[in-house]
Amino acid sequence: MLTSADFQVEELGDRRVASPLAIRFVPEGARIPLDAELQPGKEFRPDLSFERAGPRERLYFDPTQVSAAVVTCGGICPGLNNVIRAIVMQAVHGYGVQAVWGLRYGYRGLEEDSGHPPLLLTPQVVSEIHEQGGTILGTSRGPGDPAAMVRFLAKRNIGMLFTIGGDGTQRGALAIHREARRLGYPLAVVGVPKTIDNDIPYVWTTFGFSTAIEQARGVIDCAHNEARGVRHGVGLVKLMGREAGFIAAAATLASGEVNFTLIPEVPFALDGEDGFLEALRRRLADRGHAVVVVAEGAGQDLFQGQDFGRDLSGNARLGDIGLLLADRIRAYSRSTGFPIELKYFDPSYYIRSAPANTHDAIFCDQLARNAVHAALAGKTGLIVGLWYNMMTHVPIALAGSAKKRVSARGELWQAVLKVTGQPARMGPE
Amino acid sequence: MLTSADFQVEELGDRRVASPLAIRFVPEGARIPLDAELQPGKEFRPDLSFERAGPRERLYFDPTQVSAAVVTCGGICPGLNNVIRAIVMQAVHGYGVQAVWGLRYGYRGLEEDSGHPPLLLTPQVVSEIHEQGGTILGTSRGPGDPAAMVRFLAKRNIGMLFTIGGDGTQRGALAIHREARRLGYPLAVVGVPKTIDNDIPYVWTTFGFSTAIEQARGVIDCAHNEARGVRHGVGLVKLMGREAGFIAAAATLASGEVNFTLIPEVPFALDGEDGFLEALRRRLADRGHAVVVVAEGAGQDLFQGQDFGRDLSGNARLGDIGLLLADRIRAYSRSTGFPIELKYFDPSYYIRSAPANTHDAIFCDQLARNAVHAALAGKTGLIVGLWYNMMTHVPIALAGSAKKRVSARGELWQAVLKVTGQPARMGPE
Amino acid sequence: MLTSADFQVEELGDRRVASPLAIRFVPEGARIPLDAELQPGKEFRPDLSFERAGPRERLYFDPTQVSAAVVTCGGICPGLNNVIRAIVMQAVHGYGVQAVWGLRYGYRGLEEDSGHPPLLLTPQVVSEIHEQGGTILGTSRGPGDPAAMVRFLAKRNIGMLFTIGGDGTQRGALAIHREARRLGYPLAVVGVPKTIDNDIPYVWTTFGFSTAIEQARGVIDCAHNEARGVRHGVGLVKLMGREAGFIAAAATLASGEVNFTLIPEVPFALDGEDGFLEALRRRLADRGHAVVVVAEGAGQDLFQGQDFGRDLSGNARLGDIGLLLADRIRAYSRSTGFPIELKYFDPSYYIRSAPANTHDAIFCDQLARNAVHAALAGKTGLIVGLWYNMMTHVPIALAGSAKKRVSARGELWQAVLKVTGQPARMGPE
Amino acid sequence: MLTSADFQVEELGDRRVASPLAIRFVPEGARIPLDAELQPGKEFRPDLSFERAGPRERLYFDPTQVSAAVVTCGGICPGLNNVIRAIVMQAVHGYGVQAVWGLRYGYRGLEEDSGHPPLLLTPQVVSEIHEQGGTILGTSRGPGDPAAMVRFLAKRNIGMLFTIGGDGTQRGALAIHREARRLGYPLAVVGVPKTIDNDIPYVWTTFGFSTAIEQARGVIDCAHNEARGVRHGVGLVKLMGREAGFIAAAATLASGEVNFTLIPEVPFALDGEDGFLEALRRRLADRGHAVVVVAEGAGQDLFQGQDFGRDLSGNARLGDIGLLLADRIRAYSRSTGFPIELKYFDPSYYIRSAPANTHDAIFCDQLARNAVHAALAGKTGLIVGLWYNMMTHVPIALAGSAKKRVSARGELWQAVLKVTGQPARMGPE
Repeated sequence: MLTSADFQVEELGDRRVASPLAIRFVPEGARIPLDAELQPGKEFRPDLSFERAGPRERLYFDPTQVSAAVVTCGGICPGLNNVIRAIVMQAVHGYGVQAVWGLRYGYRGLEEDSGHPPLLLTPQVVSEIHEQGGTILGTSRGPGDPAAMVRFLAKRNIGMLFTIGGDGTQRGALAIHREARRLGYPLAVVGVPKTIDNDIPYVWTTFGFSTAIEQARGVIDCAHNEARGVRHGVGLVKLMGREAGFIAAAATLASGEVNFTLIPEVPFALDGEDGFLEALRRRLADRGHAVVVVAEGAGQDLFQGQDFGRDLSGNARLGDIGLLLADRIRAYSRSTGFPIELKYFDPSYYIRSAPANTHDAIFCDQLARNAVHAALAGKTGLIVGLWYNMMTHVPIALAGSAKKRVSARGELWQAVLKVTGQPARMGPE
Repeated sequence: MLTSADFQVEELGDRRVASPLAIRFVPEGARIPLDAELQPGKEFRPDLSFERAGPRERLYFDPTQVSAAVVTCGGICPGLNNVIRAIVMQAVHGYGVQAVWGLRYGYRGLEEDSGHPPLLLTPQVVSEIHEQGGTILGTSRGPGDPAAMVRFLAKRNIGMLFTIGGDGTQRGALAIHREARRLGYPLAVVGVPKTIDNDIPYVWTTFGFSTAIEQARGVIDCAHNEARGVRHGVGLVKLMGREAGFIAAAATLASGEVNFTLIPEVPFALDGEDGFLEALRRRLADRGHAVVVVAEGAGQDLFQGQDFGRDLSGNARLGDIGLLLADRIRAYSRSTGFPIELKYFDPSYYIRSAPANTHDAIFCDQLARNAVHAALAGKTGLIVGLWYNMMTHVPIALAGSAKKRVSARGELWQAVLKVTGQPARMGPE
Repeated sequence: MLTSADFQVEELGDRRVASPLAIRFVPEGARIPLDAELQPGKEFRPDLSFERAGPRERLYFDPTQVSAAVVTCGGICPGLNNVIRAIVMQAVHGYGVQAVWGLRYGYRGLEEDSGHPPLLLTPQVVSEIHEQGGTILGTSRGPGDPAAMVRFLAKRNIGMLFTIGGDGTQRGALAIHREARRLGYPLAVVGVPKTIDNDIPYVWTTFGFSTAIEQARGVIDCAHNEARGVRHGVGLVKLMGREAGFIAAAATLASGEVNFTLIPEVPFALDGEDGFLEALRRRLADRGHAVVVVAEGAGQDLFQGQDFGRDLSGNARLGDIGLLLADRIRAYSRSTGFPIELKYFDPSYYIRSAPANTHDAIFCDQLARNAVHAALAGKTGLIVGLWYNMMTHVPIALAGSAKKRVSARGELWQAVLKVTGQPARMGPE
Repeated sequence: MLTSADFQVEELGDRRVASPLAIRFVPEGARIPLDAELQPGKEFRPDLSFERAGPRERLYFDPTQVSAAVVTCGGICPGLNNVIRAIVMQAVHGYGVQAVWGLRYGYRGLEEDSGHPPLLLTPQVVSEIHEQGGTILGTSRGPGDPAAMVRFLAKRNIGMLFTIGGDGTQRGALAIHREARRLGYPLAVVGVPKTIDNDIPYVWTTFGFSTAIEQARGVIDCAHNEARGVRHGVGLVKLMGREAGFIAAAATLASGEVNFTLIPEVPFALDGEDGFLEALRRRLADRGHAVVVVAEGAGQDLFQGQDFGRDLSGNARLGDIGLLLADRIRAYSRSTGFPIELKYFDPSYYIRSAPANTHDAIFCDQLARNAVHAALAGKTGLIVGLWYNMMTHVPIALAGSAKKRVSARGELWQAVLKVTGQPARMGPE
């Protein structure tokens, strides 16, 4: 059960410095409710609310006396370079921070012997990086040693650390934050959450998601063209989404040409009168072609008894649902004599390695500026998120406590059902 | 002073029909606060709140017994066809509404003698229209005769009218709604607000805005290339924005390459030590080139004494600030001997006539579905809006009572100042 | 050894009808030399030359008395709909041909019992089809029965058949042409050559190739972003190209970011000091990342002893060189302890299912118009090709007599070597 | 009357150095005929032929002992950076040339006191410039003093000068070449012709043209959407093309949605039964909307008696045909009472300031490499062109002797007439 304490953001100490910004500051105590929706019979809970992000009138750090560092971890995502750039622009041009360092290759760049010393990120250096996908800093997976990392930062007199990455990264950030606390080293650790799957809880949307949908839509359009081009053509597209089907669902709505969307949250059977294969056959018999989108984590129960091991980050490897579906569709066609011509698309990383689109570019700019505001105010152990369209501070511990999922009875999935026309249930209940 | 009555949405009557949808319904009385931000010393006002949009468990209309009509008015905007399509899909596939009619060329399509009878919009007819910009229905400016329009609808037994358009259109919708009320004809009038300038109050963002920014960014990138290509090159881009600078400001953030952004809300002087021309000279002397973005409504005080008449909708015609700036920059160069090479870009309608991008495609889908939910529930005299990322019902009268503007001390404009590096004030206070 | 007879295009008979076009006609006997390059000591051979395509002053068919049919066969390719559209536009608007029929699903659409009767293709029907990838007619693989197909055409009084497809399709077209000749049925069979691999001889470029390169470049850019994003990152992209590496080579030049390009025409070894794996290691040690592009038909000798069967068209199935390379690179990393992080991209059909880009749109228009000119003049048994930028008539028998390949000492491959910086030879001579 | 002497390329002297390339060299004396088309009764003229471009087995310069310089002049054009990059890549990586200098801001960069010293262009410096439009070197208009420019080059021991620009630029290059000859300074002057209008004779296509068409098509698509969106809507698009209508014609073919194309080469009347305005009215009455594309140099006779002065390059300024058409169409509507709603698009520089598309990227690569081959072989006073798809050497004097124009009876214009459906003649003969 959540309490107000779960929403409490840590602070480094008194804010003795006046902000140099000429801007409307966020008032002290401004908060955004976790549940802003009012309903008869439901208690409104102002105690369960996020601290609002934004520029503070008084700062913990004197901007001219503090240095910052930025690190990018995990898989790349559209907008990483935009976030890096806007952190530099806001810190240097906005506040007059003298140095922002770019740590190389994820948390490895906080090791003394990594062989990759930090880059000094001046406005000049970052001026055009937002036009490229990926990250100019490089990235890596896996944690580092918190004690060594804090030593690395302290040695360079770095007071603000911006960690751009997913839940593993933010767990690492939390460990750094705690170690710094333990040592009494005043370090503001502020995360910008990154997940191409959009599955971080207490955060409405993450950057890069809009671009990923746009890339996915391009592939779906191609699959549609292939499917329409032959009799009983099926265009099958596998998209990212290990445990959450947000990409598959949103790309379906954006495209408008998908006939079946399969996601991890909604189980389905292949066989039987109500199963996917019969539904596919009916669609083909009726309309001549079909487009199928499957999230990589969908239908994992169909691999029962198989173990695919674990990856370097310790995540269970998934069975390849795309190939399984392709095989089963072709086998169905052979065994029933119902002709099906299947074209398989696995765009893999193509979805995430493009430069940020316009929407994400603006969003990244906003996230990064608010991260800088938070750090200079001495906020720490938090990520900057979006809640009801407002920028918020979310304690890392809270953000790491759950996972966001597509709800089968929510509007997103119901819209998918209407757009695709697929049966609400495929297989036994 | 707003009161709770201003937020009250009208209803046609009792809801006696069970919804055919299998979905999580919006509970009766669910509302979204106008100001959800909590602050010490500020009263939280649940009475000033919007009715939440979404599917209702009980409907006013029996879907199988009611027909609907859609009309698009005013200038075109990315996403019009997506909204039309999703209204048809939700009404026909979602609820089983038997007929959705497309009225031709704005409110003129509700005149018996227009020469353009309504189109029957089946799912087949609209299936691929979202891939095109513009509107398949056509559009026009100007109001119609409410009495004649209600007769037109009544004669065809149309119970739900979806009006896609700007403030003039929604005023027209309000007049139709009132006339229907007066006659006792049960007509649900539900608007989807459209404004490329994003200046409708009580609505966070409108559809098409994201696409417009994307188009604008492409032009700004070209202006940047022109400006960099010559010594003291200036790329000057005029963008839409009669009274609000949202497009100019957002495109500036999205591009990251703009050095001066001029909007209607922030006055500026051309001459004097603090004026724009000297600031431009300094930038050119310093960095060799500059990109300037100007909203069409900016700097209208520079035309003092001139009257440009009014357009067909009765709006005052604006002075052409783009040409004025171009002239003044060239004159400055000649008179001071400081060489400047200016390239002028006026993309005009290019900004608004593209197909919806992925972001807008999903947004239009959501708006349209909620409009259908509202109408079948018998809600009327409202527009469907977005507030804090939630879909809401906004009484037309409320939405028409003000205009949204860029605030000079708000985060958007402050971010523009940081991205451009332009002086916060140009000219005397 | 080629003789002038190989270049001879067959004609149906005397041309008794005056062309209705007001245009500069191609003079009788206009020809384009096979080898136009003049060299001391080399004989210039005007006898080895292609008939020039283009409008003829006198026609074999009276346009108002003849019908036409169009068929698309084999895999889809960008521009199919453009070709269909322009054939209809030129035939109907240009010449006044009364009916153009669209045959469904390849040569199957010439079977009486296919269940898919021909579509009447009016200018209205085809007016916007060029905005879509794929083919509105549908396609299929495999030949039909020439006798039955000629009966099908004769029954419908179709005098001109346009066959859009690859070498198999054109072999089928030749069989139809010969059967019609045998029966004395005056049928003009004119092909528009289609091959995404650009491997048809006596044809400089085929339509769709430019679009395919553009799509491929988008994927390569993403692979580059992935590769740069990690230490020793490798982005590996598999592209189409069963026996010819034109797509891989051209996409390499277009991108400018590729470090190794592997094509069927240039063998390479994986192991050994001079092999690909060591060259890759050197690049990674030197520059930190690498992009590798491999054509699907490259390195097939690495699968020696394995037989992958044949596909429906009778082509030998290839070993999956992309997966093999990925496996071998990872194994190399493990066995040597040299860290490599590989990201694999298999865009598959994505390369070919987009709508035609601007270049291909214009090219398709030109091909289609010349196909119509040829057919109305009574030319038959030919394809319309491009030679030295001129439109030509190429007898189908000639076009089918060889295959076009990338030459290892030619300018294309040499430019690839310069752009990539890869060793000219990898492995033992 | 052309003679073989007009095609003669000058050479600096004996070629004493063996090429370091391992490539198929172009044989001495290889030539491409001016007119390769064979016709009965027409004499084949091998004497009127272009020297073939390409790598030579023997060079004039020892690559390791010579430096090069690159200059870009005149308006920017898609692909400038690609040409610069490939010159550097071929010179440095291909031949081992030690230094390539980038001259700043056109011929001004060859003045000692320009204040903009040359940039050293290493492969590292140019590695990603092809992703940007414009030119990293900057450009300017106007000639320089040949004597001073040769001194500038000689002082820096630069033996090869690559001039990227239009006819004015190449005239300047010719003057430099002649001055160097006069002084006995061995300087290879090799031009890469640049003209967004594609109007250079003896050169089939110039780089950037394909990208310009692509940009233009995007604008035309928007104009189409605007036009269709209202009753009697007209989308009027003005495109570049001062004296030649190639852009307007090609963009028309690429789009397929244009109804009237107006170019400088084909006069038209506005008034009268056969004039443009009546033809436009008929189209609107018939189909409800129209798209009109006009090249900026079209219809200049309609400004008779007006003189618009001359620009800095000494070219006569044109009357603004776009605004004139807009005015006249609106006046026609008012005076006849036939309603027309016009939307005007003037994309201006947007057409030319984008990065090169894939087609142009490959083409630029090819042009640049052949320019380097030519210079190292000691060829001088020439431009590298494309003739019948073959790379050629064209003496600058020959290229400057004429202008390329759209022929009203050629296939390009005839295809435009078919695609638009516009009358072949508008106005009195």
